[in-house]
Amino acid sequence: MSTPSPRIDGRTPEQLRPITIERGWSKHAEGSVLISFGDTKVFCTASVTEGVPRWRKGSGEGWVTAEYSMLPRSTNTRGDREAVRGKIGGRTHEISRLIGRSLRAVIDYKSLGENTIVLDCDVLQADGGTRTAAITGAYVALADAVAWAQGKKLIKAGRKPLTDTVSAVSVGIVGGVPLLDLCYEEDVKADTDMNVVCTGDGRFVEVQGTAEAEPFDRKELNALLDLALGGCEDLANLQREALAATRQ
Amino acid sequence: MSTPSPRIDGRTPEQLRPITIERGWSKHAEGSVLISFGDTKVFCTASVTEGVPRWRKGSGEGWVTAEYSMLPRSTNTRGDREAVRGKIGGRTHEISRLIGRSLRAVIDYKSLGENTIVLDCDVLQADGGTRTAAITGAYVALADAVAWAQGKKLIKAGRKPLTDTVSAVSVGIVGGVPLLDLCYEEDVKADTDMNVVCTGDGRFVEVQGTAEAEPFDRKELNALLDLALGGCEDLANLQREALAATRQ
Amino acid sequence: MSTPSPRIDGRTPEQLRPITIERGWSKHAEGSVLISFGDTKVFCTASVTEGVPRWRKGSGEGWVTAEYSMLPRSTNTRGDREAVRGKIGGRTHEISRLIGRSLRAVIDYKSLGENTIVLDCDVLQADGGTRTAAITGAYVALADAVAWAQGKKLIKAGRKPLTDTVSAVSVGIVGGVPLLDLCYEEDVKADTDMNVVCTGDGRFVEVQGTAEAEPFDRKELNALLDLALGGCEDLANLQREALAATRQ
Amino acid sequence: MSTPSPRIDGRTPEQLRPITIERGWSKHAEGSVLISFGDTKVFCTASVTEGVPRWRKGSGEGWVTAEYSMLPRSTNTRGDREAVRGKIGGRTHEISRLIGRSLRAVIDYKSLGENTIVLDCDVLQADGGTRTAAITGAYVALADAVAWAQGKKLIKAGRKPLTDTVSAVSVGIVGGVPLLDLCYEEDVKADTDMNVVCTGDGRFVEVQGTAEAEPFDRKELNALLDLALGGCEDLANLQREALAATRQ
Amino acid sequence: MSTPSPRIDGRTPEQLRPITIERGWSKHAEGSVLISFGDTKVFCTASVTEGVPRWRKGSGEGWVTAEYSMLPRSTNTRGDREAVRGKIGGRTHEISRLIGRSLRAVIDYKSLGENTIVLDCDVLQADGGTRTAAITGAYVALADAVAWAQGKKLIKAGRKPLTDTVSAVSVGIVGGVPLLDLCYEEDVKADTDMNVVCTGDGRFVEVQGTAEAEPFDRKELNALLDLALGGCEDLANLQREALAATRQ
Amino acid sequence: MSTPSPRIDGRTPEQLRPITIERGWSKHAEGSVLISFGDTKVFCTASVTEGVPRWRKGSGEGWVTAEYSMLPRSTNTRGDREAVRGKIGGRTHEISRLIGRSLRAVIDYKSLGENTIVLDCDVLQADGGTRTAAITGAYVALADAVAWAQGKKLIKAGRKPLTDTVSAVSVGIVGGVPLLDLCYEEDVKADTDMNVVCTGDGRFVEVQGTAEAEPFDRKELNALLDLALGGCEDLANLQREALAATRQ
Repeated sequence: MSTPSPRIDGRTPEQLRPITIERGWSKHAEGSVLISFGDTKVFCTASVTEGVPRWRKGSGEGWVTAEYSMLPRSTNTRGDREAVRGKIGGRTHEISRLIGRSLRAVIDYKSLGENTIVLDCDVLQADGGTRTAAITGAYVALADAVAWAQGKKLIKAGRKPLTDTVSAVSVGIVGGVPLLDLCYEEDVKADTDMNVVCTGDGRFVEVQGTAEAEPFDRKELNALLDLALGGCEDLANLQREALAATRQ
Repeated sequence: MSTPSPRIDGRTPEQLRPITIERGWSKHAEGSVLISFGDTKVFCTASVTEGVPRWRKGSGEGWVTAEYSMLPRSTNTRGDREAVRGKIGGRTHEISRLIGRSLRAVIDYKSLGENTIVLDCDVLQADGGTRTAAITGAYVALADAVAWAQGKKLIKAGRKPLTDTVSAVSVGIVGGVPLLDLCYEEDVKADTDMNVVCTGDGRFVEVQGTAEAEPFDRKELNALLDLALGGCEDLANLQREALAATRQ
Repeated sequence: MSTPSPRIDGRTPEQLRPITIERGWSKHAEGSVLISFGDTKVFCTASVTEGVPRWRKGSGEGWVTAEYSMLPRSTNTRGDREAVRGKIGGRTHEISRLIGRSLRAVIDYKSLGENTIVLDCDVLQADGGTRTAAITGAYVALADAVAWAQGKKLIKAGRKPLTDTVSAVSVGIVGGVPLLDLCYEEDVKADTDMNVVCTGDGRFVEVQGTAEAEPFDRKELNALLDLALGGCEDLANLQREALAATRQ
Repeated sequence: MSTPSPRIDGRTPEQLRPITIERGWSKHAEGSVLISFGDTKVFCTASVTEGVPRWRKGSGEGWVTAEYSMLPRSTNTRGDREAVRGKIGGRTHEISRLIGRSLRAVIDYKSLGENTIVLDCDVLQADGGTRTAAITGAYVALADAVAWAQGKKLIKAGRKPLTDTVSAVSVGIVGGVPLLDLCYEEDVKADTDMNVVCTGDGRFVEVQGTAEAEPFDRKELNALLDLALGGCEDLANLQREALAATRQ
Repeated sequence: MSTPSPRIDGRTPEQLRPITIERGWSKHAEGSVLISFGDTKVFCTASVTEGVPRWRKGSGEGWVTAEYSMLPRSTNTRGDREAVRGKIGGRTHEISRLIGRSLRAVIDYKSLGENTIVLDCDVLQADGGTRTAAITGAYVALADAVAWAQGKKLIKAGRKPLTDTVSAVSVGIVGGVPLLDLCYEEDVKADTDMNVVCTGDGRFVEVQGTAEAEPFDRKELNALLDLALGGCEDLANLQREALAATRQ
Repeated sequence: MSTPSPRIDGRTPEQLRPITIERGWSKHAEGSVLISFGDTKVFCTASVTEGVPRWRKGSGEGWVTAEYSMLPRSTNTRGDREAVRGKIGGRTHEISRLIGRSLRAVIDYKSLGENTIVLDCDVLQADGGTRTAAITGAYVALADAVAWAQGKKLIKAGRKPLTDTVSAVSVGIVGGVPLLDLCYEEDVKADTDMNVVCTGDGRFVEVQGTAEAEPFDRKELNALLDLALGGCEDLANLQREALAATRQ
């Protein structure tokens, strides 16, 4: 690997952007977070309802799902609303499913009991890494919602529906250099782009790598995975700190 | 009219909720505002594009339109996303059209030239009066977008596309008492609900009164109009103050 | 107010167009009316079904709703069918909701019992004022449907589900002159356009005023309300006469 | 074949229901007809526009197409609007296509020139045979629209876009007896149901026979075709008479 | 009729294309067939489920329905997928309904009992006659599915849900000559195109004749029906042979 | 890793299912392949059209895209058609996008010139690994389509639009054992499921790993990547052999 050229925003290759996690951003939702990864801002709410979808009734198990969306002017040029077009685009579908799977990886359905938690992740401002910010923020909203449900006795005493934390980060190779947590400008120039979702104990939940320009080899893949594991560890610490603070 | 019973939140009948108008809330949009009417929070962005819809090409005149939407968990119980249902509901359509008409009432199309400005009003948190907050906030975002377009010379020197300010407020009769700027709890109990949109010079752009429970007479209508005119005047002053401040 | 200039069709400012109300226009519907406001013709049917929508079951209360639509060639140039486009437009939604609310204002849900009445208002020919003709005609169809349901004992003996009549009319300011019941040509030229829905006792159900070109002041608003109240009174009399006649 | 039992409405097996054809039923459309086959009433409008769909541009040839729809309460029990359901049903599609093909069978595209005529056939009241009434009425509206276009010089002098008349009728076997022009009650009981479209010179444009209950043999098919040819001849005469009358 | 000119592919006017019927083409479906009419290849599967649609519950009777679709590149130029366009086209609807009606003509619902069989007919390659190949192949898949259901005791012992075989063929007049089983090149040139569905005993289930270019007279109709009856008889024999073979 | 337990179908952990690649399966498409990975059968067609989507016009560069779909009865229980539901599901969207990206990774857009190639991958029978079979088969269809376009001189002489081969395979951990090319029964039981797309030179185009049940660690990830690289190498050889054979 060549000596890293300085990044657009002065970060080192293995450095996250400034991360902020504000809990309690909604007076209605059972859990809510405004998370920022630099200029990327995602508003995550967790909504708890008793009961589960029909195909799961009577199982004694809960369900967690997610929906992702971008506000029309969250990006540099305004995009059409999917509601106006009358259908959800492929990218939106894909990311919603990814967020749902990532959170379900740390849920013990039995302990959750027949309750459903829906995570809504709406991108207010986009600057790269919206899906990874969404997963990281949604986990915190989910944790607050689980605590709320425990307080309301919707979850049986002593049950711990959350088996671990989960966080996500993007990594990519830009100009031959593996970088952590790409902003939009870096993302556009990346040869390879990877999103990695990890549990708090450093195991993988999702690894999604895509050769945007040039196929990548095993060595490059390994360098990216190293970066991602470090980034997820940092994010897990920030999640724990945020949750340790008294909810405002 | 009986002596007004104290309101839920301690306001007098003719008092607005605390109003905040934060400009520059988006790094991408040409104009953007986060407006609060008490716990109602609406994020308004104004997007400028050169050119106009096909039916207006070659007219030398501009166009202004709006889209309103509620985040799924902006309300007390989560609502389905319209994008997921695949169609826009009647209420959303109605409010989007109202916001567009209200802003167009203070636009001089000729001065705007062949430019289009789209206002997106996304409700982050709802507590009554989302459409009136949206109109009031969207005007400020529009004013910033017009200034931006003037700076970029998209609008000819000396042209003033904005002919006045425009603001909106709800009024209603609750327990026999006419009240200004209803919060959700008051709105639910109102016999009559009216939304009034006024220009800065105190004239009406829209008057939409609906008997929710009991038809209303001319005297009640007059009392509501009096309240609304006062509220819109206060809001116009707040808009002017917000715009007078240096944009952050 | 200046001396009124003669209207396109020779009416005085406060004169309705010729109104005809033909009952029994469908052999299938429980109530049906072909109503004309001049060249505007709307076919209104009222369909009674036992039972209510799911969210109202067990309440002991009925429900009334409405759907409005224009035939593709009811207007001067052919419009696309909404069924072909695959979605209902905003204007259609808005008017359907207005008709429903207007009729519900004179319904006593308890007396109606758990029955549903759907009003279909299909515009066969449009020449301005289709929504006000629809409300006025739909009321008569509704009254016939209620009578039918009473005859079939779907409504308990002695119960009167209709608390009053309801009618609607448009008013507007054209060339500075307030006019009643605008035809299309007048509507296009109006600075201000207002639709007013009143009960038979002269109270307001809906007041929807829009500044099409120029904001309007309190004095103009008052002149329009005066005209509208007179027009609705005339329409209420025509509704009563139509219902007094033996159904053909 | 057994001696025919008297029909529900007293007709002989080879007798049409009372047919009425009222021209000029719309002030906007270039051609318009309200046609009745007994209690079946269809409102047909013909809309002329200059130009043709993109795939036909520059061919020098015109186009004719049709759309069929039933008002929600044209039938005994109210049906959902297709616009509300967001899609056109198979039956509607099928009939729209049938009407279009039937009318195109008597159109000389070259003589029509690059003009498009759209026939809208909206069923106001249904009592069997709506598609055959629609074709028969649409032809008359089409003839009026062609005459209008000739008057406006949209069609070159001396050109005759209509090569013949076209009409349609249903036939069916009910209780073993072949019957002409089935009303709804007969249609429901038919073993075989056939719709036949003929030109004025007695040739077939469409023959659509369906065994509703029991497959039919060659002899039955022949009896049905005999009946249909007679019915279409009668309808062609009624069309000619209607068109011979001065348009009201 | 003039001496038949040799056909494109050397067949005599009354000759079918080479027909192949391969059973057991799917390991999942209860019945499945790949049928070829020359270069037209349709993959037909029959899916059995216990129970019937809601409107038929408790009747003791079964239901059979069909869905037809063309793969996007089954034709010479690629067509858009209907799933991508978000709606089913009129032609697809029409053919799906035709296939369903044709198969139901040989079903005894009582004997089938409350079971539903769905026939999916997907055109892998099209060269004219896809709907007739679909009906002919679907019957064989249906027969296998019925046998499967009998083996599983979903159908009561001794019950025979199939009352006969059913097959279909196209006929048309090309250059004045009536021809059986048109390939695409012939179909395009046909003045008249007819699809005929017959039961094994030579009776008609559907007769759908369309004048593509020129209306047709009774004599031509008779010649086409003669050809079709012969073709269906041949197809019925091929169906019986295919079903007599041990399923692979 | 424990000693591998024998697989359901007797394969060793690193063994592919029997693979067959039949070229020329459609007479219409410019390239077409029926590929089998064991009982998984996917029909892939490549359609060439001159020109590119609007956003790419004038760039001198071509475009390649893909659509994936499952026939309703390709699976063990029948699924609804997406065309009937009126929208494409998230999974279908995701896989279509994956196939498109994978093929574009080996396309030199400049050499392709302004031509578009659409790959349609329709699953006729599913038994696990449909997306990987689709990518592997689509590459062969694409190669045939490129050769066809070269023969037609749509591609300039000497240009080589394909920079390498591309193939894909699934890997997963079942009962603690990493396995190559999972069949459906194995897939359902897998703790971790990964799809890997590689170029012929052994570099990665896509790595998509998902923890279905249990997060996976770096060592497990490495074992899966080893297996996948071997599988893709075998598939690349089979692709080369298939393309070396004279097209039937």
